[in-house]
Amino acid sequence: MVDPINLNDALDRIQAFLDGNDINGAVEYLRVLHPADSAEILAELEPAEQAAIFDLLQATELASVMEQLDEEDMADMAQHLDVEMLADVLDEMEPDMAADLLNELEPEQAAEVIEQMDEPEDVTSLLTYEPDTAGGIMTAPPPSLRRFWSVDEAVRFIREQYRDESQFYYLYVLDRYGQLIGVVNLRSLILAEGTQTVEEIMDRSVIWVRATADQEEVAQLFQRYDLVAIPVVDDDGKLIGIVHVDDVVDVLEEEATEDIYMLAQVSPDSEIYNSIPRSLRNRLPWLVINMGTAFLAASVVSLFEGTIAQAAVLAAFMPIVAGQGGNAGTQTMTIVVRSLALREIAPSDTFWALWHEARIGILNGLVIGLLVGLIAWLWEGSPYLGLVIGLAMLGNLVVAAMAGVVVPMALKTLRIDPALASSIFVTTFTDIMGFFLFLGLATYFLALLA
Amino acid sequence: MVDPINLNDALDRIQAFLDGNDINGAVEYLRVLHPADSAEILAELEPAEQAAIFDLLQATELASVMEQLDEEDMADMAQHLDVEMLADVLDEMEPDMAADLLNELEPEQAAEVIEQMDEPEDVTSLLTYEPDTAGGIMTAPPPSLRRFWSVDEAVRFIREQYRDESQFYYLYVLDRYGQLIGVVNLRSLILAEGTQTVEEIMDRSVIWVRATADQEEVAQLFQRYDLVAIPVVDDDGKLIGIVHVDDVVDVLEEEATEDIYMLAQVSPDSEIYNSIPRSLRNRLPWLVINMGTAFLAASVVSLFEGTIAQAAVLAAFMPIVAGQGGNAGTQTMTIVVRSLALREIAPSDTFWALWHEARIGILNGLVIGLLVGLIAWLWEGSPYLGLVIGLAMLGNLVVAAMAGVVVPMALKTLRIDPALASSIFVTTFTDIMGFFLFLGLATYFLALLA
Repeated sequence: MVDPINLNDALDRIQAFLDGNDINGAVEYLRVLHPADSAEILAELEPAEQAAIFDLLQATELASVMEQLDEEDMADMAQHLDVEMLADVLDEMEPDMAADLLNELEPEQAAEVIEQMDEPEDVTSLLTYEPDTAGGIMTAPPPSLRRFWSVDEAVRFIREQYRDESQFYYLYVLDRYGQLIGVVNLRSLILAEGTQTVEEIMDRSVIWVRATADQEEVAQLFQRYDLVAIPVVDDDGKLIGIVHVDDVVDVLEEEATEDIYMLAQVSPDSEIYNSIPRSLRNRLPWLVINMGTAFLAASVVSLFEGTIAQAAVLAAFMPIVAGQGGNAGTQTMTIVVRSLALREIAPSDTFWALWHEARIGILNGLVIGLLVGLIAWLWEGSPYLGLVIGLAMLGNLVVAAMAGVVVPMALKTLRIDPALASSIFVTTFTDIMGFFLFLGLATYFLALLA
Repeated sequence: MVDPINLNDALDRIQAFLDGNDINGAVEYLRVLHPADSAEILAELEPAEQAAIFDLLQATELASVMEQLDEEDMADMAQHLDVEMLADVLDEMEPDMAADLLNELEPEQAAEVIEQMDEPEDVTSLLTYEPDTAGGIMTAPPPSLRRFWSVDEAVRFIREQYRDESQFYYLYVLDRYGQLIGVVNLRSLILAEGTQTVEEIMDRSVIWVRATADQEEVAQLFQRYDLVAIPVVDDDGKLIGIVHVDDVVDVLEEEATEDIYMLAQVSPDSEIYNSIPRSLRNRLPWLVINMGTAFLAASVVSLFEGTIAQAAVLAAFMPIVAGQGGNAGTQTMTIVVRSLALREIAPSDTFWALWHEARIGILNGLVIGLLVGLIAWLWEGSPYLGLVIGLAMLGNLVVAAMAGVVVPMALKTLRIDPALASSIFVTTFTDIMGFFLFLGLATYFLALLA
C-alpha cells in the first residue's frame, strides 16, 4: 500500500532536480508517479522546463500524461512538440482525448497533424459531433464480440485485441450488420465456463444512447442505472462509441457549475482565470439587463416621490422591502430550478408547487411582517409605519413565493433553461410589487405617517 | 438491442393490470423490467397496490428493487414487510444500501430486524461511520486475493466466492494481516496467463482512502484518477470497504445541490417535497438574518433622511444602486466560491484575485456608471444627479468586486464553507457602501440637486 502523494512535496522534489540541471532525474521521478500526478506537476512548471522534460519522454508517456490535462493545458503542452511527435502522441492517446486536443489547435495545425497520424480515423470520426452530446463525449468503441463465439474464443480474442485498451469493463456483442445486440460484463466472462457461448452469457437488455442525445441525458442514464460505461449508437442502431463514467462525472460537475453561474447571472462558461475582456463579456451584459429592470423598479418608486418627500423615513425601509422579497423569491426559485434540473418535479406539478409555496410564503410573511412591523414601530415610534411595512412584507413574501414557482416553470415549459433567466424575472417582480405595496399603502395612510 | 422504456407507458400498463385485479400480471411485467425502472414504477403506486405486489415478490427481487430507491422511499416500502421478510430482504441487499435502510427505521424496529438477519455483521459494521465520510458511503469489501496464488487459482476462487456479488471491477490483494498490498483489475486477470501469480499482475500503487475521509475528498480522488471503485482502509491499513463510482456520482450531485442552496440562502438539505414546518425551518432563519442586515442598510439610509426629504428623487435611484452592487458582488463571489469548491484557486490566490477582480470592477463600474448617469440626467434633467449616481455606481462596483473576493476567501481561511455565508456578507456590504456613497455624495451636492 503506497501512501497518497503530497503534490507540493513532489513539486519541490522535481524543482530540486531542475535547479540542479538534472533533467534525467526529474524525468525518472515523474515516471514513478501516477500519470494524473505527473500531469498536474508538469502543468505547474515553466514552459522551458516543460519543454526540457518533454524532450526526454516517449510518445506513450506523453500521451498518458496529456490525457490527464484539461483541454487548454493540453493545447499549451502540445506547443512543445513538433508535428511528427504530436501525431505520434495523438495516435497513442484515447481517441476522445485526442479529439479534444485537436479541437483546441489552430485548424491548419490540426490538419497537418492529422496528415501525419497513423490511424486518424478513430479520432477524426469523433470530431463531427456537437461537444455537449453523447457523440461529443464518447470515445471509439472497443473491438466487439460475436454471439456464436465460445467464451474461450472470446477470451482469446480479448487477449489479442485488447492488449492496448486502457480501460474497459463491458464487452459489446454485434450482429453481422454492426448492430448492438448484447453486452457481456467481464465478471460474467470470468464466471462462465469456457464452452458456453457468448450468446448464453450476454445480457440482451443493453442500455444504450443515441449519439445525438444531450450529455445531460447521458448523465441521467448513468445515475439511473448505476452504469460504468454506456454504448453509443447511430440512427441505424450501429455501435459507434462508448461513454465512460469518468467523462460523466466531468459532465455532472460542468452542468452544476453552469447552473450555479446562471443563477448568479454570469455566463455559464465563466472561469476565474478568464481574461479581463472575456470576463467583461461574461458579466457586463447581465449587469446591463439588471440595470434595465432596476429602472423599472425606480419608476415605480418615482410614482410615489410626493409621498416620500412628506415622509422621508419611508426611504429607509425600502431596502428591507426589496431585500426580503428578493431573498424569499430566490429561495423558492432556487429550489424549483434545482428540483427541475434533478427531475424531481416537472411543469405539470406547477399547481401543487404553487399551493405548497404559497403556504410557506404566507407563514414566512406573517413572521417577517410582524417582526419588521414591530421593529419599525419601536424604531420610529409610529404604529402606522409598522402596520404599513408589516402588511407590505406579508404581501411581498406571498408574491415572491408565487413568482419563485411560476417563473422557472414557465421558462421550462417554453424550453428555456430555468436557471438562465429566472433570477432576473423573480427579483424584478419582487422589487416592483414590493415597492408598489409598501409605497401604495404608505400613500393611503400618509396622513397618519407624515 | 431493446428500446429504452418509457416510464409513463410502463406505468399505464401496470395500472391496467391492477385495475383488472390481475396482480400476477403486474408482477410478471415488473419482472422483465430493469430493477431501476420497476422501483420507480412501484414508488408511484398507492400503498395498498405496493403491498399487494410485494406479497408476490421474493426476497431477492424485493432487495434488487429496494436498492434502487432513495432512503425515504425505501423506508416507506419497508413498512409493507413483516420483520422476518424485511430481515431476508436486508440479507440480500448490498450492505451499504441495507445500512442506509436500517438508518431510516425506528431504532426498536431496526434492532428487531437485525436480530432476525442471517448475516448482520456486514451491515451493522457500516452503521458506525459518519454518513458523509468514506466509511459512511462504502459497502462491505469483496473477498480478497493472496499474492502467491496463481491466476488460475484466483479465477477458481472468484467463481466460488463471487457468484453473488452484484458488481465488482477490481480485486484486492491482502497480506496475512489483512493489509491492502495491491489491486488486480479484471482486465489484467483475463489478459494474464493462468500460471502467472497474482503478485506478478497486481498493481502495488493502489489508490486508497481512509474511512474517516470526507466524502468530498473521496469524490476528488475519483475525478483525479478516473476511478471506478476505491478501497477504504482503517487506521491500520486494513481493507474494510469499497466505495463505488455510482455512490460518488450521487455525492457530487448532493454537494452541488448543497452549494446552490447555500448560495441562495436556504438550508443545504432542503427539498421541494419538504413538509411546510420543515420548509419554514430551512428558510425562515435565513430571512431573519437578512432582515437584520437589511436594517443595517436602512440605518445608513436613515442618516440621510434630511437629504431625501429635500430631494425625494434620490429614493427612486436607491434600488438601482443596491441592485447593481448586489449583482456585481454576487457575480464575483459566485465565481470565487465555485472555483474554491473545484480547487481551482485557494486562499493563497487572494491578492491575484483581488487585482483581477478590481480591474473588472473598475471597467464594469465605468460602463454602468456612465449609462446610469446618462439615463438619470436625461430622465430627471439634472446633470448633477447623473454625476452623483454615476460616481456612486463606479465606487460601489469596485467595492462589490473586492467584497466578492475577500469574503469567501476569508471564510475559507476560517474553515467555514464559503458557500454558506458569503451571500449575506457580500450583499450587506454592497448595500451599505452603495447607499453611503450615493446618499453621501448627494448630500455634498445637495444644493445642486434639490
